[in-house]
Order: sequence, then structure tokens, then C-alpha cells
Amino acid sequence: MSELKNSGYKGEALRLLKQANCSVGDIIKVTSKSKTYEGILIPRFGEGTDIIVKMKSGYNVGIKATADVKVERVGEGTKPTFASPPIPKQNPNLPHVVIMSTGGTIASRVDYRTGAVRSAISASDLYGVVPELGDIAKVDTEIVFSIYSENLTQQDWTHLAKKVAERIEQGVDGVVVAHGTDTMAYTSAALSFALQNLPVPVILVGAQRSSDRPSSDAATNLIGAVKAAGEAPFAEVGLAMHETVSDDAIVVHRGTKVRKCHTSRRDTFKSINGTPIAKVRNLKVTMQTDQFQRRDPQRKLVLKPDFCEKVALVKFYPGLDPSVIDFHVQRGARGILLEGSGLGHVSKFCFDAIKNAVARGVMVALASQCIWGRVNMNVYDTGRDLLSLGVVPMEDMFPETALVKLMWTLGQTDDPQEAIKLLKTNIAGEFSPRTLPQEKHLQYEEEP
Amino acid sequence: MSELKNSGYKGEALRLLKQANCSVGDIIKVTSKSKTYEGILIPRFGEGTDIIVKMKSGYNVGIKATADVKVERVGEGTKPTFASPPIPKQNPNLPHVVIMSTGGTIASRVDYRTGAVRSAISASDLYGVVPELGDIAKVDTEIVFSIYSENLTQQDWTHLAKKVAERIEQGVDGVVVAHGTDTMAYTSAALSFALQNLPVPVILVGAQRSSDRPSSDAATNLIGAVKAAGEAPFAEVGLAMHETVSDDAIVVHRGTKVRKCHTSRRDTFKSINGTPIAKVRNLKVTMQTDQFQRRDPQRKLVLKPDFCEKVALVKFYPGLDPSVIDFHVQRGARGILLEGSGLGHVSKFCFDAIKNAVARGVMVALASQCIWGRVNMNVYDTGRDLLSLGVVPMEDMFPETALVKLMWTLGQTDDPQEAIKLLKTNIAGEFSPRTLPQEKHLQYEEEP
Repeated sequence: MSELKNSGYKGEALRLLKQANCSVGDIIKVTSKSKTYEGILIPRFGEGTDIIVKMKSGYNVGIKATADVKVERVGEGTKPTFASPPIPKQNPNLPHVVIMSTGGTIASRVDYRTGAVRSAISASDLYGVVPELGDIAKVDTEIVFSIYSENLTQQDWTHLAKKVAERIEQGVDGVVVAHGTDTMAYTSAALSFALQNLPVPVILVGAQRSSDRPSSDAATNLIGAVKAAGEAPFAEVGLAMHETVSDDAIVVHRGTKVRKCHTSRRDTFKSINGTPIAKVRNLKVTMQTDQFQRRDPQRKLVLKPDFCEKVALVKFYPGLDPSVIDFHVQRGARGILLEGSGLGHVSKFCFDAIKNAVARGVMVALASQCIWGRVNMNVYDTGRDLLSLGVVPMEDMFPETALVKLMWTLGQTDDPQEAIKLLKTNIAGEFSPRTLPQEKHLQYEEEP
Repeated sequence: MSELKNSGYKGEALRLLKQANCSVGDIIKVTSKSKTYEGILIPRFGEGTDIIVKMKSGYNVGIKATADVKVERVGEGTKPTFASPPIPKQNPNLPHVVIMSTGGTIASRVDYRTGAVRSAISASDLYGVVPELGDIAKVDTEIVFSIYSENLTQQDWTHLAKKVAERIEQGVDGVVVAHGTDTMAYTSAALSFALQNLPVPVILVGAQRSSDRPSSDAATNLIGAVKAAGEAPFAEVGLAMHETVSDDAIVVHRGTKVRKCHTSRRDTFKSINGTPIAKVRNLKVTMQTDQFQRRDPQRKLVLKPDFCEKVALVKFYPGLDPSVIDFHVQRGARGILLEGSGLGHVSKFCFDAIKNAVARGVMVALASQCIWGRVNMNVYDTGRDLLSLGVVPMEDMFPETALVKLMWTLGQTDDPQEAIKLLKTNIAGEFSPRTLPQEKHLQYEEEP
């Protein structure tokens, strides 16, 4: 009998699936016009009326449920089972690491294992699918929320920062935050500013592929993150993911210097204008820099979790309508991050709007859409003109971290002088020193 | 006697410079609070009241002319000379290449040579500073305009495309476009769409450092560009710049697949999701791909130079105020390019605004802020929801090229069906084939 309760299907899709006697987890074949898709029927979330099939390749395909679509039940799939394996006896000599889950593909690793969706992780789930964790840490888990990372807001950052702080104050040896990769680098920058004077590491981790794909990176990333959280000698916010497309090494990037640079690759995260903090290979943590804050359980965490929501990013491009700057000012923006071109430019057509924004007390800052390198607004007339209008150059921060820093800064103070001072202060390694040899900044090379 | 006519200085700066008996081109010393700057006094353009000194490092420094600033004339600089060297006898057997200048650092190479500013190039100037050009081409020059590239608009792209087309119709063997690097990749994409069915190459070229810096890349870039324009076997729009930080090779990127990726490095331009077309090393052109349109002087150029100015780019970030989408719709936008996260997502808070935009006939397309990789909006619910709202995925185009393609498409047609068809047609190599092995897309690697 068809079991589609809580499957999320409705309307035509539900009718077609019922007619073919399909249940969630079954192997089904869906024929639509000229194409046929065979795979596991998975539940439907969100809007839309398509039937979702998880293909052998691991990707999900959505097929619109129209009258000419044919659905066939090919076989019984693995039925969802909610019986978790027992938690192994924990070794009290291992470091105590808490894994906090926020949602995303890494949390869905467990969900999709059996064809069922459970958007949360429990310690027993984790040990069931990544038994190696029992050898490297006493793992505790906490579901902070379960949100696709693209839907996270500044309020969620605040909530998450407070939750992490609670655990650190309870004395854990490290915190791992499982996160969707889409906005993970924004969150890692946010936590870097919010959690100051850390005694232990806080490591964000995600997955580019869910566990039922042969190339899943969920387990290796998680092991690397837990290892770093429990044992690494640094005490900063980091982001742990594959270093290359192979499983050889997990690299921990500094929270303020990391960016998602590929839509699908496992090594999508790259350190920009800086080197990674550490590497985890063969369960061994190796530091990649000597510039880091040392782990020190006695250090007293300083929590500054507030972010201003009234901050907008305006990316410059040829033909940009400068009235979008006026629009943000009228909407009550307290800060605007210009994503300028080259060394830090926008067209002269924007000057009046910027002048007006600054006059109204809006903090206007600028980072470069080049991503790599440092803004230098003293080289060309346009840069100098922008400086004289009061635009604050964001050094070698790429736009996403610059935006988060502006949000955080305006969440700390209402005083413009204080805000400029904070913007120009290196809070969490978000600047690289100016003395770095210029030609060494670029972190990528042509393929051979 | 102080010669400051047409120097651009006024107010306090002019007073200080006159008092110290300085002329443009002189070596001067400016002392401001604790710092002292010594270098060549160069003219002042644009707004602002600072004194501009070209330092030995090649960079210009602007020092605010306040009452406590001291100016001293250290020595006589090389005076501007407008006597151009004679044009060498041209070898009639060499290919005929026209260099069209639009402004930017490469055009200022000649300007700053003598301390004088001339924002244009003539054939004799070029032969004077890059005598090697006489051995590789019969060079003709044309000043199309002289604009900082951040101030270029869609109308300038149209004008430039027409000017290039004129020269091609006159039968030149290749065209070089000297351009400021800030928006050069936007222009190269624009020309790629506007100049179809090219018989000969059109090569954009810029410089990251002006010629009076020891590390200037202007001459080597120009030689590589002229060589490729005159002799390369391909007939497409390319962009020629340093391949690495050394002078060994100039690489020609495909016009639609290239992006400025560093604020200051000479190898700032990178091919994204594709390989470069060609390389020029030791004055020899080597093709880097066998996927290209061959040079064929008999082929008839098709000029489609129109771009729609009513196109906006909205970059997604956590906390994005969705009403910015409504704003663009109300301003009469015909197209909106969403710069989404990951595989092609924006927050659910934007869905209503997108729905409304599409309902009002606005074409909404999406590219990923990851830059590398391909959007795939079938994997997660958010992507599927966006597809069902009518959002058009832009394949493996990074946001800047996707934006230019949307501007060009809406400049070609008012018919929505025709526009979608054009968006989904590969016009100028802006898509890479889907069959490329996924793991091979990334064009950068960690530093060793």
C-alpha cells in the first residue's frame, strides 16, 4: 500500500504516486515526454508540484507532475528506519567536542541514508554513520536550528553565537558547527567577529555531496573538523573542508579569510589573501601558519553577538543605476558596502548618491569585486575622489567578509567615529598585514 | 618660474606649489605631519584638493593640501615633450593591425613617460616606446574615446563595437583595443556578443602598471596582443594579459570567459570555467584549445551592437532586503541578474519579489557568486522553487558575463520567448559544454 503521509506531495503528484502505489523510499521510474528517470522517491519539501527522484548519481531530479507523466513502481526501496545504533562507550580521556547542527547537506547526510529525511543529527546518528568519531572525541550534539543556509539571517547568527558561547562556557574542548555550504563563509566571518578571545577552536563544516553519493565528502569533512576542534593548538573560528578533490586532507581556513569559490567541487572553499590555519591529514593536525591565537582553556570568551540588519551590498558594474544607493538610504540603511572594481572604483555617476549617503550618516565602505588583492584608493583619481567623499577602504577583505564586518561594526556602536575605528581595527585576522609581498597574495594558479 | 597652467591644481594646493616654484614634471618633496613624500609632481584631474606625487615605486600618492603641509622643489624633472619619434618605415608584408584606444593605464603608459599626461596614443608614440611593434605589424591607431573604464556605459560598448566593425570591414588583419582593466572583462564579453561571425581576431589589452614602474606590463601585453591580432589562427574576441607574474608569456583568454581576479597583479585576468584560447611566447602564437572559430578574411562580420540599459544585478547575501528587487522593477528594469549562492539559490524571503518581477514581464536570470562551476537548480528545493518561479539559470557563466549577456539579449528583442531562446543559445563560447568533467572546471590551485 502506498505510504505517502507526511511525504509533502499534493495535487497531481500525489495522485500519480498513489495510483502507482509508491511509497517514500521505493525505487520508481518516471517517464516525462522523451525522458525517463529511475531512482528513489524522496519526500517533497517547499513549494512546487514536481516529483523528486534521487538518481543513482546522487543528484535529485524534480519532474513536473503533469497529465502526460507516467509513474511506475520498480521495486521496494530501503524503508526508513529510525532505530539508531547504540552510542559506543565513550573514552573519557578523549577531548569533549560538541557538534551543533544548523542544517544543510552535511546534516542531510544522515537524513538521506535510508531514503528518509531527517533534518537533524543526534550523537547516535553520527556514530552510526561515522563510527571513527568515537576514536577521536567524546561527541555531544545539539540541534540549534534546521534551516537551508541561504535562509539564515543576522538574527540566526546572533542566536548561533550565543549557543556556541554557552557551550564554551560549559568547558568543552572545541565546537563544530555543521552548516549548509551556501552561506557558510558568511557565518564563519560573523562568528569570528562575535566570538572574541576564544579559549578553544570553533570549526564550521559542511558537505558538498550527501552521503549516498559515492563521492560524498560529509564523513571526511566531519572527522577533520572534530579532530581540529578537539586537539588543534589554535583557538579561532575556522572552516574545515576538503583541501583538494581527493580525500587526502582536510584544510581549516581562517573564518574571515575563506570564500566558497565553486558551485559543486569538494574543495570549493579557498583561503583568500591568506593561508589556511591548519591541515588535518591521517588524523594528524598540522599548523599552516605561526600567526594564530593559541588554545588556552583559561581564556575568557568575549561575546559580541549583535549585527546590524540595515546594511546593504551594492555591486558595481557598467551601467549601474546610482539611484539604488538612494533607495537603500531611503530604506534606512546604516551602512553600504560598495563592491567596486579594480583597486577600489565605482563610476563617477555614483558620486552624488554616495555623497548624499555619507551626508545622511550612512557608513559607506568599499571592497573589490576582484576578490583577490587589496584595495588601494590612492592610485587613480576615482579612488581619491571616493576617499574624499568619505568612503572607507576595506583593505584586503573580499566583499563578503567586508559586508559581515560592516554589519557587525554597526551592531556594536551608533557612534560614527567609533564605527570607523572598529572598521579599521583588525578584529579576527580579517586584514592581512600590508607588508606581505604583493606578488604572493594570489592563492590560485592556472591548471598545468 | 612655476608652470602650473592646465595642471588642474587649485586653491591651497595651487598656492603651495606656486610658492615652492614647482612645475609639473619637477621632482618635489611634500611633508605632511610625520610623513615625507618625494617624487614627480603630476597633474591633477577630477575633484579633490590633494597634491599628486608619482613615487619611485610607480604609484601615485595624493597628499591633502592643508596649511601644515610643506612643499619643496628638489629638482627639475624631465619636461613634457610632445615631439614624437618618427614612424619607422613600415614593412608592407606584415599584417595590418589597428590599435584602438579607449583609455586606462595602458594608454597612460605614454602619458606618464615624461611626467606629462596625454590620455591618448598615436602610432608614433607607440613606436617610440614599443619599437618592437614595427617588426610584427603595420600598426595604425585610432582614439575611440579616453574614459576611465569604470565610467564606460552600454552606449560606449555600442560605439566601440561599431568602430571595430568599421575597421574590420576595411579589411584589417586584426584589431587591438587598449582598455582600462577595471571593466575590461565586461567590455570583452560585450564585444563578443556584439561582433558575431568575426573574420579576424579582436584583442582587448590593458596594463596593471604604468610604464614608469620597473614592473610595467604595458609593453609586453601590447606586443602579445598585436602579435595575436595580426597572426593568430582564430577569429574571436580575446583578452591578452600576462599569464603569470613573469614576462614569459602573454595569454589570450576568450572574451566571455575571463574575469579580473586580483586588484594589482599582472596576471589578474583568469579564464573561468574554460581554458585560454592562445598563448604568445617569444613572439610565437600557440593555440591552447582546438575549439575555436578559424580566421577567415572572407567571412562576413555580423554586427549586433545594441545593449539594454534597463538591466540590474542583485547580489544575494544573508539579510538581503528583497524590496531592492521591487525597486528595480519599479524603475523599469527589463532584466534582473541574480547573483545567487552555491548551485543557484537566494533566500525564500525573495520569492514574492521575484514572482512579482516575472509577472510584470521582467526577465530574471541567475548566476552563482561562487564564480567557478555551473548552476544546477534541480538539486535542492530552493533551486527548484526558483525555476518554477520562472528564473532562468545561466549555466556556467559567472555573474559579470551573465549580466552582459542579459543586457545584450534584451537589446536584441522585446519578445520574451525570443529572449529566453537567445539566453539559452551559446553565442560566443559563453557556455562550456556540460560534458566537461566536473572536477576539471576549477582553474586555480592552492599555492604549494
